[in-house]
Amino acid sequence: MSKELLHIIKVGGNIIDDEAKLKAFLSSFSMLKGKKILVHGGGKLATKLAATLNIPQQMIDGRRVTDSETLKIVTMVYAGYINKNIVASLNALKCPSIGLTGADGETIKAHKRIHPSIDFGFVGDIDEINIGFISSLLKQELTIVIAPITADKNGQLLNTNADTIAQEIAKAMSTEMETTLIYSFEKKGVLLDITNEDSVIPVLDKTTFEKLKTENSIFAGMIPKLDNAFEAIHAGVNKVIIGDAMQLDQLTNGKSGTTIC
Amino acid sequence: MSKELLHIIKVGGNIIDDEAKLKAFLSSFSMLKGKKILVHGGGKLATKLAATLNIPQQMIDGRRVTDSETLKIVTMVYAGYINKNIVASLNALKCPSIGLTGADGETIKAHKRIHPSIDFGFVGDIDEINIGFISSLLKQELTIVIAPITADKNGQLLNTNADTIAQEIAKAMSTEMETTLIYSFEKKGVLLDITNEDSVIPVLDKTTFEKLKTENSIFAGMIPKLDNAFEAIHAGVNKVIIGDAMQLDQLTNGKSGTTIC
Repeated sequence: MSKELLHIIKVGGNIIDDEAKLKAFLSSFSMLKGKKILVHGGGKLATKLAATLNIPQQMIDGRRVTDSETLKIVTMVYAGYINKNIVASLNALKCPSIGLTGADGETIKAHKRIHPSIDFGFVGDIDEINIGFISSLLKQELTIVIAPITADKNGQLLNTNADTIAQEIAKAMSTEMETTLIYSFEKKGVLLDITNEDSVIPVLDKTTFEKLKTENSIFAGMIPKLDNAFEAIHAGVNKVIIGDAMQLDQLTNGKSGTTIC
Repeated sequence: MSKELLHIIKVGGNIIDDEAKLKAFLSSFSMLKGKKILVHGGGKLATKLAATLNIPQQMIDGRRVTDSETLKIVTMVYAGYINKNIVASLNALKCPSIGLTGADGETIKAHKRIHPSIDFGFVGDIDEINIGFISSLLKQELTIVIAPITADKNGQLLNTNADTIAQEIAKAMSTEMETTLIYSFEKKGVLLDITNEDSVIPVLDKTTFEKLKTENSIFAGMIPKLDNAFEAIHAGVNKVIIGDAMQLDQLTNGKSGTTIC
């Protein structure tokens, strides 16, 4: 018996920040057929709120440290404001949805990041995805909307990377369903030339990726996303697509973006 | 066949605001046997955040008006910060939980309050409770934690009274289960003498209530809660108990608080 299709779509912060773009994205997303999970990032709202509240944002090696006040802000903004507005909008678009953090239904078990030299604060690394619970919600014809907040076994909430959440859910769910993982953002896909939006690589396999990496032909910022993408494929995810959140329909049918296989 | 037991417990703002009390309450709550739903209020956190952000809080006839900035704050604080911390704490107490607003899984359908003369802003009145979805989560042995935010059919989030949410859920679920509705707060129960914490009325029926009301023997602030309680009983809820959130165990076994029947 062939497995049922599941789309796991990560939508980036730049779309979340732009009301018109978010509205257009959610409209396309709501029309996407079959089971689906949306993982959203945070956008600049949390940063803005921290600035208004005079909570300094500490960066180490270009990465944000989540102290207790910052955790409070990201929990309010990601799990409260952004997540619930997306859920209510999708319901209104006749796409019945439920918003979850990793804590809800113990959907994602995580632990506080352990780093040999840097304390990133309340940042979560993922241990386990609750496949049974996710499946049960999908079977009830609900779309799942995930905010990038998890919790550890002591009840400590943790700020968690949305790309990683999307990838871990895709990997875990691929044991049950035929999964496509889509990283949607403001670029058209993986570009051969970062200054040229038309230089999208339509299909990228591991060998070509390694070759392009050696030649320094891939934008450095894209490399961790692509490493993640190949890891997901290796772990059983059927397809990973990287591309423009404003072309969701074309991404899912291979007419836009970069397909990793 | 006898119906399964369900406790719906509303916990008030004063408990939410006090870290030690909330911890003690959640510990007792987690040990309560059988299916359960927790509805939490907001506490002073939202008011404090509004003050820090210089968002003026408008009151009409002693009731708060929820303008768009205030709605943003209550969504962040109630659905984000408070709800997710409670869920993570309950999970850690071996009480697997899921946090919901009315929007999630379309658990509560609501509309913006229509008032002949006052515009209360983004305030929701409840139309319908999604009994099927609540039942399906309870069957999965999940405790449901509800934040007092709902949405209308256009995707507009709405600030909604937590007492009313608890009552409407209790009424709706009483068609399926044997429901007990508990309003837990910082008082020991319905007092005959507001200055004497030991004057708790242990059992209150409609006739006695009406008599006490006529005699002005009941604290005015308690009357809407009691009117709601009798309405719930009338609509099929088995029992309504009003009492001290710090004595949850004694409330459920009738050793404390006021039982309405």
